[in-house]
Amino acid sequence: MAVDDRDRTSTHTDSGLHARVELSRRRLIGTVGAAGAGGLALGAVGGVAGHAAAQPEPGAGLASVGGTEVPFTGEHQPGITTPMQARGHLIAFDLAPGAGRKEAAALLRRWSATARRLMAGRTDARDSAVALDAGPSSLTVTFGFGHSFFGRTGLAKQRPFALDPLPAFPADRLDARRSDGDLWVQIGADDALVAFDALRALQREAGDTARVRWQMNGFNRSPGATEKPMTTRNLMGQVDGTNNPKESEPDFRKRIFVPAQGTSGGSAGTSGGAADPDWMAGGSYAVVRRIRMLLDDWEKLSLGDQEQVIGRRKSDGAPLTGGSETTEPDLDKVRADGKPVIAANAHARISRPDENGGAAMLRRPFSFHDGYDEDGVPDAGLLFICWQADPRRGFVPVQRKLDRGDALSAFIRHESSGLFAVPGGARSGEYVGQRLLES
Amino acid sequence: MAVDDRDRTSTHTDSGLHARVELSRRRLIGTVGAAGAGGLALGAVGGVAGHAAAQPEPGAGLASVGGTEVPFTGEHQPGITTPMQARGHLIAFDLAPGAGRKEAAALLRRWSATARRLMAGRTDARDSAVALDAGPSSLTVTFGFGHSFFGRTGLAKQRPFALDPLPAFPADRLDARRSDGDLWVQIGADDALVAFDALRALQREAGDTARVRWQMNGFNRSPGATEKPMTTRNLMGQVDGTNNPKESEPDFRKRIFVPAQGTSGGSAGTSGGAADPDWMAGGSYAVVRRIRMLLDDWEKLSLGDQEQVIGRRKSDGAPLTGGSETTEPDLDKVRADGKPVIAANAHARISRPDENGGAAMLRRPFSFHDGYDEDGVPDAGLLFICWQADPRRGFVPVQRKLDRGDALSAFIRHESSGLFAVPGGARSGEYVGQRLLES
Repeated sequence: MAVDDRDRTSTHTDSGLHARVELSRRRLIGTVGAAGAGGLALGAVGGVAGHAAAQPEPGAGLASVGGTEVPFTGEHQPGITTPMQARGHLIAFDLAPGAGRKEAAALLRRWSATARRLMAGRTDARDSAVALDAGPSSLTVTFGFGHSFFGRTGLAKQRPFALDPLPAFPADRLDARRSDGDLWVQIGADDALVAFDALRALQREAGDTARVRWQMNGFNRSPGATEKPMTTRNLMGQVDGTNNPKESEPDFRKRIFVPAQGTSGGSAGTSGGAADPDWMAGGSYAVVRRIRMLLDDWEKLSLGDQEQVIGRRKSDGAPLTGGSETTEPDLDKVRADGKPVIAANAHARISRPDENGGAAMLRRPFSFHDGYDEDGVPDAGLLFICWQADPRRGFVPVQRKLDRGDALSAFIRHESSGLFAVPGGARSGEYVGQRLLES
Repeated sequence: MAVDDRDRTSTHTDSGLHARVELSRRRLIGTVGAAGAGGLALGAVGGVAGHAAAQPEPGAGLASVGGTEVPFTGEHQPGITTPMQARGHLIAFDLAPGAGRKEAAALLRRWSATARRLMAGRTDARDSAVALDAGPSSLTVTFGFGHSFFGRTGLAKQRPFALDPLPAFPADRLDARRSDGDLWVQIGADDALVAFDALRALQREAGDTARVRWQMNGFNRSPGATEKPMTTRNLMGQVDGTNNPKESEPDFRKRIFVPAQGTSGGSAGTSGGAADPDWMAGGSYAVVRRIRMLLDDWEKLSLGDQEQVIGRRKSDGAPLTGGSETTEPDLDKVRADGKPVIAANAHARISRPDENGGAAMLRRPFSFHDGYDEDGVPDAGLLFICWQADPRRGFVPVQRKLDRGDALSAFIRHESSGLFAVPGGARSGEYVGQRLLES
């Protein structure tokens, strides 16, 4: 069943607010238009690491943050290569008892229509009005399916082998209540009210079909906070994301996205092989981990000790062997005492792709801070989200090494984990997951 | 004891990071300087309601958000009339056993020096590096004293009568563990990493002197998310702040700030009267309440019913009697059926200053969202913060009426409460609270 992305016939009855909202929206989009189409288009491209790269040029005016729109329709879902946003929500749902494939399909259809509408800034009377006055503010909504989804919807034969549960990592301290889930939604925006409005809209639409399993909030640097586009920092103060694959690299798509239909090895359900099912064409796999940072311990280290743990300078992310952030580390370089400049267990050494059989993943995290424990310890860290064409060749081998030998392990704790199959983007008139749910 | 605001002699030992950071900071400030001094000065003035009012003019470039600096020194502390910021942290401390006036004075001295330094963007090796690369991003730090502070420091005679505990409001459902506190700090910034860095720096400096009692995080609209400066919305979707007193109004200062020394009626400690002690000259009183919004119930109301509860249109905040957001409501206007257009228990009617003996307070809140309860209900609402020269003529009479008769009461729940005496701003070379602690 096709979805009309301008369909407003659902529960909409109050034309008064609707008309006023439409007026408000047109005023805003009008202003953005005056800043040049470049401002709008930029939201859809650009690198992941540097947030400011996606901002309209200086001079685009105050609506530049609000007016940036990311397209919903495309080969891939938004929120994967979209530049990191200032605010993020992650929410996982489990299907309610009695809800199966049909109900899930209807839910994805509703969710897709709403995501398409809100990402275009078309807030209307169905919404809470929290996002009113603001533009789309780079809002993205990304949908994924967890391992348990397929059994509950009678689609076990369509379940990709790449979605098999992650291996146990000995250092993990996972809370099952904040892990996994039938359905996963990632929301990002550069305005916190816009992001919250989308979160609430999607939860309302879950209705009786799906119930919240867990929900987490995160943040990143605000657009315009740094002078120029820069790799972000995490809450340990480290430059974080330097080695992310770049969209300009020839094998970027191959590493991050499942190949388009016809180029893969066939359907997992029918061939029994390791290849992805057709419905995953253009999709990606997301590993989601709440990584608590033991900031009190970390901050007791001297700067020199922190830099030894990471293998990079804290000030600018350059390797301890010299150069700038993007300089290749000289892993063989030794000090006068014969020890390596970048220690054997330094995070930068162990996490390098070329130390892990070329494994690569696109990390696109949010920081989190959920206040303080009763003993005055901050509940803060990283909502680690990484994207790859196959987690068995991305996250898993890297994490196996980190779990065993990373000097950083003493200062972090993996508290939850999820792995989700994120199908390709919706085509015009299609909803996300339609190729699975109507297969 | 005077404080040198450029003092870097404390625990600073690593000159390497320090030098690199200084370089980084100069690069950023240099860029901001090129955008014109107007961009910097704007951060210190302008109205509270419209965030974008404080942003540099269009064309100021990408560092406009990061480069905006709010002065620490002044007649009043920052963070009161400063335009609302995108990110906020509230944190309350209790003095540790054994810590008294001397230790509190040393703490306020440390805190003031750090606030002054970070608000000027002078991040250095003492800090976590989380804020590195970004400019000050309109960072403000505001310090207050709770009722319990004065007894613990032997300063009971200096305690203002205005700090007497708030009356009990029957509808309150207060959690003592998240209420009150000896010391209160409000942090705001337009970049979440800058705000977090300041929060951590202040907590570290509390050391053995003070322990975290409670901590809350909040947010507001991002700079540039709306086309023009607009009154913000809360998580119910309501335009919130329309009736805030404006700095341009002749009695604004009288209502919000304690008069300067020499113009008040004398010291509370010596006169026994209702006047403020001299050390509060230029200060203000902050009432801080975590107001949970029962969003699931609220969102079940029709738009018309929501507007009846508030007495204003949801789309633009105009009174139901017509006009625009700033039009005075016609409280006597009746419908064809003889009932008032703005209901007798409408929030807009009951909360009006002229219905409360002219009581006025400056509301400067943050929204909060701390995830979902286990039953899928959002833990979200408003970190209500209001400022006034005397809470007994500001918050208290208004809340008495709201608590009894406000139609909105059914959809909100006051979960915590604090009242803090916020002294005047530090002069050059002075620390906040010095006039109290060295009196």
